[in-house]
Amino acid sequence: MTVYNFCAGPAMLPTDVMAKAQAELLDFQGLGVSVMELSHRSKSFMAVAEAAEANLRQLMNIGDDYAVLFTHGGARAHFSAIPQNLVAAGAKVDYLISGQWSAGAAKEAAKYATVNAIDLRDGGGLDLSRLNQAGEGEYLHYCPNETVDGVAMFEEPVTDKPLIADYSSCILGRHIDINKYGLIYAGAQKNIGPAGLAIVIVRRDLLGEGQPQLPSILNYRLLDDNGSMYNTPPTFAWYLAGEVFKWLQQQGGVEAMAGVNRAKAALLYDFIDSSTFYQNRVQPSHRSEMNVPFQLTNASLDGAFLAQAEQAGLMALKGHRSVGGMRASIYNAMPLEGVRALVDFMKQFESDNR
Amino acid sequence: MTVYNFCAGPAMLPTDVMAKAQAELLDFQGLGVSVMELSHRSKSFMAVAEAAEANLRQLMNIGDDYAVLFTHGGARAHFSAIPQNLVAAGAKVDYLISGQWSAGAAKEAAKYATVNAIDLRDGGGLDLSRLNQAGEGEYLHYCPNETVDGVAMFEEPVTDKPLIADYSSCILGRHIDINKYGLIYAGAQKNIGPAGLAIVIVRRDLLGEGQPQLPSILNYRLLDDNGSMYNTPPTFAWYLAGEVFKWLQQQGGVEAMAGVNRAKAALLYDFIDSSTFYQNRVQPSHRSEMNVPFQLTNASLDGAFLAQAEQAGLMALKGHRSVGGMRASIYNAMPLEGVRALVDFMKQFESDNR
Repeated sequence: MTVYNFCAGPAMLPTDVMAKAQAELLDFQGLGVSVMELSHRSKSFMAVAEAAEANLRQLMNIGDDYAVLFTHGGARAHFSAIPQNLVAAGAKVDYLISGQWSAGAAKEAAKYATVNAIDLRDGGGLDLSRLNQAGEGEYLHYCPNETVDGVAMFEEPVTDKPLIADYSSCILGRHIDINKYGLIYAGAQKNIGPAGLAIVIVRRDLLGEGQPQLPSILNYRLLDDNGSMYNTPPTFAWYLAGEVFKWLQQQGGVEAMAGVNRAKAALLYDFIDSSTFYQNRVQPSHRSEMNVPFQLTNASLDGAFLAQAEQAGLMALKGHRSVGGMRASIYNAMPLEGVRALVDFMKQFESDNR
Repeated sequence: MTVYNFCAGPAMLPTDVMAKAQAELLDFQGLGVSVMELSHRSKSFMAVAEAAEANLRQLMNIGDDYAVLFTHGGARAHFSAIPQNLVAAGAKVDYLISGQWSAGAAKEAAKYATVNAIDLRDGGGLDLSRLNQAGEGEYLHYCPNETVDGVAMFEEPVTDKPLIADYSSCILGRHIDINKYGLIYAGAQKNIGPAGLAIVIVRRDLLGEGQPQLPSILNYRLLDDNGSMYNTPPTFAWYLAGEVFKWLQQQGGVEAMAGVNRAKAALLYDFIDSSTFYQNRVQPSHRSEMNVPFQLTNASLDGAFLAQAEQAGLMALKGHRSVGGMRASIYNAMPLEGVRALVDFMKQFESDNR
C-alpha cells in the first residue's frame, strides 16, 4: 500500500531523495563510510555543503549581498537569535501576529527587545489595515504561513524597515523575492529536510556584533565568517537538504513546485467547500497552500475518520493539539496523487457516514 | 577493503547500527515511512525517544533526581546555556583549563558570569595542585577529555560546589559516577550518534528560571518539563543515539567498552613509545584513551604518511588544524582490529621510511 504522510513536521521527504539516501547510507561516494561519519571539514563534506548552498542560492535567486546560514536549533532558535543579532537590547521592534507561531516569536523576542505586537487576527481572516500600527520598530517580523492555523499572507507587508519572515512552512513552496527582505528563516523539517537544521538568509549589511548575551552558536556574523561551521553543524541534515535542493531543480524549480502546490491546495479546498460534511474556517484569501486544517461538521466522527484514514495509508491527519480536528500538510514532497487519494477517501467517508 | 575511520567527529558509528538504520530507513516498523518523517509527538516516535532515554539511564545508572535532555546545538550550545541556566548574571564560576575545549567553554561563559579560569596546563601534562585556585565559584567546570590535545583527567577534581563536565569525547567510553556531578553534557558526534544533537544530564534541584536572556530552546527546566520536545528535536539523531545505546547494552555496557577502550589505547601508546619514529608528547598519566595525537619525528613525511594511510583504508588521521601532526580518535565504535590495522601500518611505514 502506498502511504501518504500528511504530517506538519517532521514531514515527508521526496521519495527519490530518501531512496538515494538509503542507497548511499553506508558508502558515500565510494569512501567506505557514511556521509554522517565524515568530518565536516573534510573535502568530501565541504563539497556537499557548498553545493547545497549554491543550489539553494540558485533556486531562490539569492545574491552575494545575502548570507545563507545552515544552523542548529530549528526556527525557534531564531525567535531568540533575530532580535539578539539585529538590534540593541530593548530596541523597538514590530511583530505582526497572524497565528500561533508569530505569537510565539513575539513572546520570545520580548526577552531582548521592546515588542510592539500587532494582532491581525480577525475571525477566520486577517485585518491587514492594522498594519498601520507598525512604524516605530527597527524591523517588522511576520509569518507568511501559519502551520497550526492554516493561515497565510501572500503579499509582503509594506514597510520601510527591514522585513523579517519565518518561512518555515512555505520556503521553496512558492516564489519569494528575497530582495524585499532583511532576513528570512526556516526550520528544515517541513519543506527542506529532517528536523534539527534551520536555514537563515540575511542581508549582510544588517549583521553586527549582536547583543552581549548572544550565544556564539547563534551569532550570525560568526556563522557567516565560518561558513556555518563555527561549531560542528548537523551534517546529515545539511546533506539531505542538499539532496532536496537538487530534487527541486530536477522538478523545474520553485515556480514549477508553486504550480503543483496551487493545484493540490485547490483540489482539497474546492472539495471541502463543495461539502457540508467538512469545513475550513479560514477566509479564502488567507488560506494556506501548505497546511489545510479542516473539521468534520459532526466532530464525534473524528476518531473514526482518523482511524480509517490511517488504514487507507493516509497518515498523520490529526490537527494540532491546540486546535483539534484534522490538518493535511501538503508540502513540496507530497505528490498530487496523495491529495487525490485524500479527497477520494474523504468522499467515501462522507458517503459512508452521511 | 575494510575502511577504519579515525575522525574526531563527526566520528564513525557502530557498523551494526548503521546497517540497521539503512535497512529500516524507508520503512520504520512497517509504517511505510522513515523514522525521520514521523511527528516527534507520534506514538511511534515517542516510544523511540523514551526507550533511548531509558537505555541511557540504565547504561549510566542515572537516577530520577537527574533530568536527561536531548537538545539541539552540539556541546558548544551548552557553553552558553550552562551559566545562563545555573547562576545569576555575573556570578562567580570556576573553570579548569586543560586544553582547547575547556578554554573555549570558559571564554563563552564569560558573557554570562565572572569566570575564574584556572590553567592547569604544564608542559605535556596537567598540574593538578592548581586546583587550590578554585573555591569561590558557584560551580566548577572542567573537560575530562580534551579532543584536540589528547589530554585526559581520569579523576574528578575535588570540590564542594556542583561539578560540571564536558564529556563530549568520552561519555559512555568509561565509567562515570553521575552522582558526583551537578551536570554533564556531550555533543553526540563522537560517542553517541550523528552531529546536531547534544545530551545534558543535570541534577534537577539545580534548575531554576535561568538568566533573563536565556533562549527558550536552551532553557533546561523548560526542556525537562516538555520531555526535550519544547520545540521539534533532531529526531533522526535521537533515534540513532537510541540505537547506539542498545548496541552498547549488547556489547556488555560501559564497563565492557571501557575494557576494550583501555586495550585499544594501550596498543597504540605502547607502540608509539617503543618507536623513535613516532612520538606522543602528553604525560602518560593524562593521556586520552579516546583521542591519540602523535607526531612523526620527521614531519616532512606527514603528507606521505597521511596519503598512504588513506590508501590503506585508514581514514581521517590528520591532526586538528590548530595542532598539526596526526590524531587517531578511537571511540567506542572503533574495533580493536582497527587499531591493530593502524599499528601494523605505522610499523610498515616506519620500516619503509627509516
